[in-house]
Amino acid sequence: MRILVTNDDGIFADGIRILAQDLLNLGEVRVVAPDRERSATGHAITVLRPLRIESVKFPDSRIRAWAVDGTPSDCVKLAIEDLLEWKPDVLVSGINRGPNLGTDVLYSGTVSAAIEGAIYEIPSVAISVAAFENCNYPVAAEFGKQLVSIVAKMGLPPKTLLNVNVPSVERRDLAGVSITRLGARVWKDVFDRRVDPRGRAYYWMAGSVEESDGDLDIDSVAVRHNMISITPIHLDLTGYDLIDQLKTWDIKFGDGF
Amino acid sequence: MRILVTNDDGIFADGIRILAQDLLNLGEVRVVAPDRERSATGHAITVLRPLRIESVKFPDSRIRAWAVDGTPSDCVKLAIEDLLEWKPDVLVSGINRGPNLGTDVLYSGTVSAAIEGAIYEIPSVAISVAAFENCNYPVAAEFGKQLVSIVAKMGLPPKTLLNVNVPSVERRDLAGVSITRLGARVWKDVFDRRVDPRGRAYYWMAGSVEESDGDLDIDSVAVRHNMISITPIHLDLTGYDLIDQLKTWDIKFGDGF
Repeated sequence: MRILVTNDDGIFADGIRILAQDLLNLGEVRVVAPDRERSATGHAITVLRPLRIESVKFPDSRIRAWAVDGTPSDCVKLAIEDLLEWKPDVLVSGINRGPNLGTDVLYSGTVSAAIEGAIYEIPSVAISVAAFENCNYPVAAEFGKQLVSIVAKMGLPPKTLLNVNVPSVERRDLAGVSITRLGARVWKDVFDRRVDPRGRAYYWMAGSVEESDGDLDIDSVAVRHNMISITPIHLDLTGYDLIDQLKTWDIKFGDGF
Repeated sequence: MRILVTNDDGIFADGIRILAQDLLNLGEVRVVAPDRERSATGHAITVLRPLRIESVKFPDSRIRAWAVDGTPSDCVKLAIEDLLEWKPDVLVSGINRGPNLGTDVLYSGTVSAAIEGAIYEIPSVAISVAAFENCNYPVAAEFGKQLVSIVAKMGLPPKTLLNVNVPSVERRDLAGVSITRLGARVWKDVFDRRVDPRGRAYYWMAGSVEESDGDLDIDSVAVRHNMISITPIHLDLTGYDLIDQLKTWDIKFGDGF
């Protein structure tokens, strides 16, 4: 199996190192990832300046790796268009430090890299560990490895990918796997306004999530109950339900149509 | 009517200037936009550094405006969380220089700003003119103004927005309005690899779209036939169709579940 690994925490993050090493058990592994942390870059790509690529050594010399001074989506595009000598059978993005749940997946570089993989028609999986401190990457990597081998066997429909969140607990404390949908994520106190020594204001984006309870088929609820959540993601943003309604609107353009 | 205007071409771009001026006919207008071009930033938000805000003068003093050193999504969040004294009735993002069609909306800062508006439950419209040179912003702004007044009256369902692309032609040459879905956008020759004077490679993201023909209910086809395309966009990325299928997968985690 040929596996492309990327992330948004940067190529030197623990999560991607542990993941790439584990995936070696399944086949060939190539890593193409940002040269530094690029969290919350969403599906940004770099078009206003050119990109640079640097070869990076991993402890295990079987893993060939490149750092890119761009976003996760840039990395996937460069890997497939230019760097790799083969088309990957599977793309794995992660392991992200911190959860990627609900509406927040829109902001996630980790998930966007997997969306980019799906655009290239590669079965793709995004994996996050649902904690920012004391992240249990080995458990998430082990689960990721097993899921990747299933995905390689079963395939995924076009334009879809999987978004996985693993609670940061010991393996014996995991409560199972839940196939989930994205929940709503309501943030409050989004900005922390401060004043610099020269008297000018600056704003940190921060805030906290108002957790709401619900069924275990909601990703954030499942994770809070120590379950691994697997949410299928699709990348057609068309709001089909609304098309017929819009056709009834009387949209005229002045004297024209 | 209270209208928030933003874009991804930056606050000094022609498109946002002409749009904001036209929208004054509908009510109060506030502009919060990036301080420079932030094209293709997708749904990026800025979390690794703080944001700065600067007041900007528009020719018409009734338009109050602020520049933010961040992404379009940052601008919408800052506007609603901090800068505006009211919650907007409508958000309009644009007028973008260049089309935002098909799969490419995932990369679009213009559309992402409107998605951010929808997250805040504000009826939101993204408007692009489908050309990079000789952009006919006045026609697009005039149509945008009429559509915004309809949206304000009719409302939009939760978690949806409208993505509008206007052909860059004279008004008399427009062939009508088509309610569309997002088409596929297949790019080729994505990277232009060059070598700098010191012998090191760099990569420009570029490429060209392979236009495919099809029905007028596909956004790119409609625009190519001189029709204004209006595509409803929703922001729930859950791939519901795949949930039942995944539940049949035998996902085991070692000796565990």
